[in-house]
Amino acid sequence: MSQPSTATSATAHSVWPDWNTAAQAVIETGRQAAQRGWVPATAGNFSVRAADGLVAITRSGVDKGAMVLTDILRQPAGQALLPGSSAEAELHLRLYADHPTLGAVFHTHNLAASVLGRLHVAHGRIVLEGWELQKALQGIRTHETRVHLPVFANTQDIAALANEVSAHFALAPADTVLAPGYVIAGHGLYAWGSDARQAWRHLEALDVLLAQVLALRA
Amino acid sequence: MSQPSTATSATAHSVWPDWNTAAQAVIETGRQAAQRGWVPATAGNFSVRAADGLVAITRSGVDKGAMVLTDILRQPAGQALLPGSSAEAELHLRLYADHPTLGAVFHTHNLAASVLGRLHVAHGRIVLEGWELQKALQGIRTHETRVHLPVFANTQDIAALANEVSAHFALAPADTVLAPGYVIAGHGLYAWGSDARQAWRHLEALDVLLAQVLALRA
Amino acid sequence: MSQPSTATSATAHSVWPDWNTAAQAVIETGRQAAQRGWVPATAGNFSVRAADGLVAITRSGVDKGAMVLTDILRQPAGQALLPGSSAEAELHLRLYADHPTLGAVFHTHNLAASVLGRLHVAHGRIVLEGWELQKALQGIRTHETRVHLPVFANTQDIAALANEVSAHFALAPADTVLAPGYVIAGHGLYAWGSDARQAWRHLEALDVLLAQVLALRA
Amino acid sequence: MSQPSTATSATAHSVWPDWNTAAQAVIETGRQAAQRGWVPATAGNFSVRAADGLVAITRSGVDKGAMVLTDILRQPAGQALLPGSSAEAELHLRLYADHPTLGAVFHTHNLAASVLGRLHVAHGRIVLEGWELQKALQGIRTHETRVHLPVFANTQDIAALANEVSAHFALAPADTVLAPGYVIAGHGLYAWGSDARQAWRHLEALDVLLAQVLALRA
Repeated sequence: MSQPSTATSATAHSVWPDWNTAAQAVIETGRQAAQRGWVPATAGNFSVRAADGLVAITRSGVDKGAMVLTDILRQPAGQALLPGSSAEAELHLRLYADHPTLGAVFHTHNLAASVLGRLHVAHGRIVLEGWELQKALQGIRTHETRVHLPVFANTQDIAALANEVSAHFALAPADTVLAPGYVIAGHGLYAWGSDARQAWRHLEALDVLLAQVLALRA
Repeated sequence: MSQPSTATSATAHSVWPDWNTAAQAVIETGRQAAQRGWVPATAGNFSVRAADGLVAITRSGVDKGAMVLTDILRQPAGQALLPGSSAEAELHLRLYADHPTLGAVFHTHNLAASVLGRLHVAHGRIVLEGWELQKALQGIRTHETRVHLPVFANTQDIAALANEVSAHFALAPADTVLAPGYVIAGHGLYAWGSDARQAWRHLEALDVLLAQVLALRA
Repeated sequence: MSQPSTATSATAHSVWPDWNTAAQAVIETGRQAAQRGWVPATAGNFSVRAADGLVAITRSGVDKGAMVLTDILRQPAGQALLPGSSAEAELHLRLYADHPTLGAVFHTHNLAASVLGRLHVAHGRIVLEGWELQKALQGIRTHETRVHLPVFANTQDIAALANEVSAHFALAPADTVLAPGYVIAGHGLYAWGSDARQAWRHLEALDVLLAQVLALRA
Repeated sequence: MSQPSTATSATAHSVWPDWNTAAQAVIETGRQAAQRGWVPATAGNFSVRAADGLVAITRSGVDKGAMVLTDILRQPAGQALLPGSSAEAELHLRLYADHPTLGAVFHTHNLAASVLGRLHVAHGRIVLEGWELQKALQGIRTHETRVHLPVFANTQDIAALANEVSAHFALAPADTVLAPGYVIAGHGLYAWGSDARQAWRHLEALDVLLAQVLALRA
């Protein structure tokens, strides 16, 4: 398959930020996601990979728009989830394990992602094509590229979903261009990048792309 | 019937906040509801149960986004409405009487609730199913649960509506899972919780759930 | 016809505010209208009736979200428009002349009003019925009241439009309940009240009512 | 063809602002565009013509909502693009070359423009007719004027697109009234004016006009 587009800028972050810097990026990302209405009712989770094999990741059940440092867990990558973790933290850790160049993973409850996910789940993907904003996804050079944004059925079996995501990205055909993210039907959007800034750019771009697809369909 | 989901966390608030703390929570809730456009033209009302058998509840006719302490009434639970009360205050007091663990009741004029209410009033409910955000409702563990959000016809006979709501929650079949709230057609949304924080989480979750249902339908 | 609903609270403002107070209300109204996206591209105009036969009214062509005192004209009621006036100022002055109890007239470019106006212009009105928020219109006691919001075709002949509006409100059948405002198709919304506070409440209510009607129709 | 409407107020800016003033206008425009959600994921570009044959124009790849002076390039008009330029800077420079009275060019990714562009690209234009807000476009005196907003297919060949735009505005029939801007399908909106203030007014007006057209169609 084609590598997730973030792979190409890997060398920029062979040195990860220290944990406190990573945690501050998580706090700021949550604040901005809340302003956009993406994390209602304590929804959403955010992580940034830090130095020393650590990940700064949001604690479960807190308002993501008003976090402080104690709301961020100091999770060792590749180890069991800490007490207070969201069940979905496993999806973050699996992405970091599968993709060594990933520096940040953001998950939000965008309305268009949730609704379009239900409309496309039988098809397994939303194809983004003909939108200029596709070029905001790392490695995409033209709106003519057919970008596949995978859609997975929602489940409470997070281990199974982590396996499904992992297999999907590993086994996609060589000529498929995959977005740096995926949709869970009736649930929301995951997006990632080589660092927090790129992951946020991908999140913003996918949010608008999905809103455009939904409006075009209506 | 299944208990309203808030019943399960009752013990957390066997001690209610003092009236001033409750009133401050009402003021802050109104401010945030106004920012979201949920209380146009002095619409909406908000209450928090306080110690000593009191309820802190909004006065009628004030801008809910800019309230001060004198806009909050010191209403004794289970007694006649004070001068300056909204007629709908009766709906709040009935909920507190029926459900001893309820700590806060919030009512807003969300567009999706008002519109979907008219579309579903003949059916008597909106069924929420397959949305991850259902898990933000206390006691719901999976998106697969069919959650019933009751829809009542609008009326100016508030005593009759209070009776109808009371009977509906008391008499629902045992296998029905009820949301911690209800919709009045062409009017808006009621949501409650064991305290102001939980009631707000329920209000945010139901607002997004209804917006998703409306978008999926379009 | 039934009196415009604002007539009932006339006595409250037999004494009008001084011109500076009225002008400050106009400035603040413009600021809040801009925050809601109702006055794009210098659109909209706002007036408040003041003491001594004066009206504080917005100058043409200024950004209504960032006005200062020199953007407000000191227009004598019932006299020729001052230099710098918007052509539509004539609509304001006619309303003040026709309805002695009117204290404020606000005009905005709400999207739902503009679009629904085009859909309803052949019919001449939008009927509001079954919406609780109708009760935010002065004198309306129940959502069951059928409230007529007149819709006029757009025109650049403001004198003719002023006559048409004036005749419509004077000649409406006795059993017709008229909203305190009207829509111009493809243009926007006029709303008024006995003072700036009531006119703003009517503007907010009509904006949400029209958005609900548009959403229900879609 | 009819001149682009901005031509009529040319004399107002025979003296262009100095580069620093122009750059500050670009920074402020980007900040306001970001508040409206028009420049997601570093999208959009903005320029203001300055004295001494210079253009103040946004650098590629920066967040347009939080720019500082070093994010603005000091581009000589009519010369090769500076390092760090967006490819689309060529579209700006061609507009300044073709229309000597143009003082500012703004490009944003408005949802309605992007979506309507795809729906209208085969037709080559969106006709704006019957909307009062058309009068916010310089030179338009009535909502009855049929204003043509050209729609071009998206392409990564910016030189070809610049030629296509240039020819379209030069060769339009004499009785065609052209908007001061154009749409690129699946991409976004360009708008211009004799100075930054007028270009912003045109951008706001076209954004709302397109949202109205989209809502009327739905």
